[in-house]
Parts: sequence; structure tokens; C-alpha cells
Amino acid sequence: ANIVLLPGDGIGPEVVSAAVRVLEAIGQRFGHTFKFTEHLIGGCAIDQTGNPLPEATLEACRTADAVLLGAVGGPKWDDPRASVRPEQGLLGLRRGLGVFANLRPVRVHPALIEASPLKPDRLQGVDLIVVRELTGGLYFGQPKKREWVNGQYHAVDTLEYSETEIERIVDLAFRLACQRRKKVSSVDKANVLESSRLWREVTNRVAQRYPDILLEHVLVDTAAMRLISAPHSFDVVVTENMFGDILTDEAAVLVGSMGMLPSASLNGKHGGLYEPIHGSAPDIAGQGIANPIGTILSAAMLLRYSLGLEQEARAIERAVDRAIEEGCRTRDLGGSLSTTAMTDAVIERLG
Amino acid sequence: ANIVLLPGDGIGPEVVSAAVRVLEAIGQRFGHTFKFTEHLIGGCAIDQTGNPLPEATLEACRTADAVLLGAVGGPKWDDPRASVRPEQGLLGLRRGLGVFANLRPVRVHPALIEASPLKPDRLQGVDLIVVRELTGGLYFGQPKKREWVNGQYHAVDTLEYSETEIERIVDLAFRLACQRRKKVSSVDKANVLESSRLWREVTNRVAQRYPDILLEHVLVDTAAMRLISAPHSFDVVVTENMFGDILTDEAAVLVGSMGMLPSASLNGKHGGLYEPIHGSAPDIAGQGIANPIGTILSAAMLLRYSLGLEQEARAIERAVDRAIEEGCRTRDLGGSLSTTAMTDAVIERLG
Ligand SMILES: CC(C)[C@H](C(=O)O)[C@@H](O)C(=O)O
Ligand SMILES: CC(C)[C@H](C(=O)O)[C@@H](O)C(=O)O
Repeated sequence: ANIVLLPGDGIGPEVVSAAVRVLEAIGQRFGHTFKFTEHLIGGCAIDQTGNPLPEATLEACRTADAVLLGAVGGPKWDDPRASVRPEQGLLGLRRGLGVFANLRPVRVHPALIEASPLKPDRLQGVDLIVVRELTGGLYFGQPKKREWVNGQYHAVDTLEYSETEIERIVDLAFRLACQRRKKVSSVDKANVLESSRLWREVTNRVAQRYPDILLEHVLVDTAAMRLISAPHSFDVVVTENMFGDILTDEAAVLVGSMGMLPSASLNGKHGGLYEPIHGSAPDIAGQGIANPIGTILSAAMLLRYSLGLEQEARAIERAVDRAIEEGCRTRDLGGSLSTTAMTDAVIERLG
Repeated sequence: ANIVLLPGDGIGPEVVSAAVRVLEAIGQRFGHTFKFTEHLIGGCAIDQTGNPLPEATLEACRTADAVLLGAVGGPKWDDPRASVRPEQGLLGLRRGLGVFANLRPVRVHPALIEASPLKPDRLQGVDLIVVRELTGGLYFGQPKKREWVNGQYHAVDTLEYSETEIERIVDLAFRLACQRRKKVSSVDKANVLESSRLWREVTNRVAQRYPDILLEHVLVDTAAMRLISAPHSFDVVVTENMFGDILTDEAAVLVGSMGMLPSASLNGKHGGLYEPIHGSAPDIAGQGIANPIGTILSAAMLLRYSLGLEQEARAIERAVDRAIEEGCRTRDLGGSLSTTAMTDAVIERLG
């Protein structure tokens, strides 16, 4: 299998090489060969080519079996008036690959309950997955613009959805729910937004095809509250791009650290983009202390969803669980293991 | 002073009459006369007049010294395809009064720490205020629409800000910070949204006028996380309308119940709109068990910001603190006091 690596910026290269070591160990143990090719994206791509998403990168990702990405961005490229920004590379890639469904599972590991700011009883049985729409909504819509009106600038962003865009993501959420606890929470702001009202109508329509699944509509403000006050009440959460961005970072609190959470972005056809949900963490970049687990678990999702290697995916997930259970911790979790030591701990437990 | 009451729907009438009793007690003790006039808004206004914001309501609110609102909405009016909705009444009122600044203070009462899902040590010293922009952003912008394109509907919402709109809300946040811990956290999504980039530029410009205030820019996803993982790190938070909606409901988790939190909406000139941040809670409406504290504390803000009665405002806030300290609790806080009994408890402690 052909895997494109996009290390990107900040801690991106450190966590991606950790995940590659795990994939290589899996390859050895299970007799697979993975071919890795590295490409530029984000800030480092701007520095080297002037373009946050060079043609060669997009082309390589399009033909790959899967793409594993670290993170993009950093203070170096943070001038709000800059005409090119690292994040454009990531957004362009998501759009270019058509990966409209971003899956972000949030499972609280029992051994990490003490690392969370929440009281232990609130975390019992938390096992949810956010299905974030990834190629539409407030992130895309009509071209963003700034207009000069009556002597001052006006800036405009657009949140736009078609019925087809809503239908395909909601349907995917329902299909996931069939294999889980059979509940879908659709999050919107239908009391204010027209796009949310269309979202709700289409969702109700899709729900008719899944009589066994319980559907609830939750307003985004209520969802932000319930995610902390009653996180076990969620199974599959499906929502708009920006809402999903906010809610998944919030949900990261439940598991004790952003560094733990993986994601998969799928287009329902071929390939797939895998990345941890954390950012480039410029404050700790280059120190070898980043938590590699989010990226390692993203690699497990890659094996599952893009390569159909379920057993291999499980082997990684079990190894991570065991390492955590046995007390292995990077700094973000209150431990002192380096990125490399944490990765070694996972590899040793691959079984 | 002339105060317009808008009880609205669900538990709205119950909590508003509780707050009116507290205001009347304050009037007696301090020798003020408040003239209350009641008007329709929301679902009950639709039922009686067909209009969620009848002319007479808006007119009365425009000339009043202040407006005290309960809540609007409920399942009865929840059909996504309905052409009038209760929330339009509230949005129209905010816009009609030009109350662009929604102040939502979040202070964790020591006696309520045990009611929060967070571990006690995370709640030490939490005392923040969210300044939510209230008459622009994703809630308003260009007229919301649904378009028929290539055989299907597209729904469009617009997030729009002018420099003037950003400047006035950010300036208000900086002025508030001067009287507090001298820190402003401006929350945006500048790595994706054009409106956020303009927001950031204008904010940096305003900051130059306040050399004593520490300004930080926080991405909305990070803010959603930090609000739970490190809530004490915030003092004044200023943000877009929708972001503010989400973050303040999330922040309600910190204080143990949505029912505790008040808000003030100001236009920098005259009048002001005061409402608890909770909704109409149709599930408990009419049972006399709603927590009235959010509305009572909103009445205190009304005395402070619209009537200049600081001492009287403090008297209410102290009475609420004492009642909580001495164990008075409605059901949402794990107690059994009715709305009336909780209100009595506050009135008895007005000092
Ligand atoms: C880097 C940024 C553009 C990105 C997003 O907002 O989608 C990130 O926050 C994420 O959640 O993957
Ligand atoms: C009722 C609704 C329109 C309102 C809002 O979204 O502003 C409410 O959630 C609030 O926060 O005051």
C-alpha cells in the first residue's frame, strides 16, 4: 500500500515519524509492506515553494491509498494580513480529496480518568464519535471576501449547504450508529440559522431509512454544555464543519489531553486523510516531548478504513490501551516519557 | 423607573415574577418606585397576535429605562418549516434596541463547587465575563435564504462584520478589563474566517489604546477546550455572536447549572435588555421548580447598568451569595426548594 506522509509544521514531523515506526512494526509482524512517500504542506511548503499545497502534494495524495498528516501552522506564518497561510494547505487538501466526513472518536481510557478535569463519575462509559462535515459549511461557502463600504471594511464569510451535502454526511452518521449504540445526535442551531433548518429537514428524512436508530436534534449551545455535563449521553454526533471543530476540541478535555485523539477523513470512495486532532504546538516543537498517541491511533484508523486491515488496527489500539494502563505517560498527561519512549512502549506491546 | 417585563414562554413567566418580587423588595428597602409594564414576546405573542415581536412590545421597550426578559420558544412552535418562530421575537428585539454587547459574567460560587462536573481544584478562582457581540455576526448578516439550484435546495447564512461593529464591542471589553484583572481574550477563528481576520486586526488596533491591558488571541476551538481545562486563565472574553452563544452555555457547566447565570445586553446609550442565559425549559414549565437566580441576578445587573443603582445591585448579589452559602438549592442544584421558596430565601437576606 501506498501511503503519503505530510509531516507539516511544529510537532507534525515528530508525531508522524512516531506513527510510521508503529506502522513499520505492524508491517513486519503481519507481513505487509507499506510504501511511504513524504510531501510538503503548510508553513514549510510556503517557505520552500511559496504554496501551502504544492501541486505535487495534492497529486500524490490523490493517487495514494491513504494520507497521514501531522499538523500545519505556527506563529511564523500568523500575520492576519498574509496572503498565503499554512491552513489553506490543509483546507485545500481536504477539499481537493473530497473528504467530507471527518470521524473523531472520543473514548475515555479508564486509566486516564484521573488526568481529566472532570469528576471521575462523569466519565464512566464515555464512548462517542463526532462526525464532522469537513468540506462545506462556514469553512467554505462562497469565496470569502472583504469589501470597502462607506469608508470601512466589511468582512463576509458564508455558511452554505446543499441537500446532497447534508444527506451524505448524515447518512454516514446513521450507518456508523448501526454498528454502535444506535443513537444519533444531530447538532445544529435551527432556531437561528437557515442552513440548520435545512440540515434538520434532511436529517429527519434520512432517519426514516433507519427505523432502529434513535435520532435527537440538539442545539449547538446545549450540545456544548451536555458534552461536559452528560458526555455519556452521546453516541454518534453529526454536525456542521465549524460546530464540529469547536465541539471536538471541547471533547478532548474528556480524555485528559488533546494529544490522545485521532481522526479519519473519508470521501466514501478511495483514499482517506488521517491526522491527530491536535495542532502544531509550536511551544513544544523540536523538543521530542509531544504525545504521539493521536497520530498513532490515526494510523490505526488508516489501516481500518483505507486498507481494510481491521486486525492490524486493533493490534495498535490494544497496544496503546496497554501502554496507558501500564502507566506510560508523556508530559501532557503528567508523565515524563519522550515521544520516542512512548512510541517504543506502544511497539513493545504490539503483541 | 420604567421597566418593561417580557415573561415570554415556558418557565419565563415564573422566573420573571420571582425577579419582580426581589426588585419590589429592593424598592421598599431603598425607597425606589419601579413601574412595571408587561408585554408579549415569542411563542405566546405568536399565539395571540401572529407576530413574535408585536409593534407595541418593541415600542414599549424602546422608551423604557430597562427591559427584563424571561425566555422564548418551545416545542409547540418548533416546526422547522414554520414561517414565524419565537426566536425571531428575541432576535428582532435585540436588533431593534441595538443592544450589541451581551455581558455574561461567570463566577463560581465556592458553595456550588460540588455541584459542578469539574474537579474542585479546577474551579478555584474562576471569575470571568464573556462579552458576546449580539446584533451582528452569523445571526444576522445578509438576509438568510434558501435557493433552488440544480434540482435541490441550498441554504445560506452569512457571517458579516464591519470595522465599526467590531471596534465598539472590543472597546467595551477593554473598558471592562480595566476594572477587572486587566486581561482580554479575544476569541476568533482567524486561521479560517475572513471576518475573524478583520476582527483580529481591529482588536489589535483597539488594544493600542489600552497599554495596561494584556491581550491574547485565542482560536475558538482552543477556547472551548481551555474554558474547561483552565477556566481561571480567562478574565474578559470577547467574541462573535455565535461563538459567544456556544461558549457561554459551555461556561454554565462551571457554575453547576445554567439556571444560575444572568446577562445584560447594552447599546452604550439608553435602556438595556436583561435576561437569564437559560432557555424556556418546556420540560419543567408550570411546575414552580425553575431556578430563579439567573433572572434575579439579571435584575441586579439591570439596577447596576441601566439605573445606576450599584448599592442595590450589590445587595441582591450578596443576598444570593448568602442564600447559596446557607444551602438553599433548587432542583437543578440538587436541592428541593421551589421557585418561590428560593426567591423568599433571597428576599429574606436582602439585609
Ligand atoms: C488548522 C485548522 C484549519 C483545523 C480546522 O479548523 O479544521 C484544525 O483546527 C482542525 O480541527 O483540524
Ligand atoms: C433563543 C436563542 C435565539 C438565543 C441565542 O441563540 O442567542 C439563546 O440561545 C441565548 O443564548 O440567548
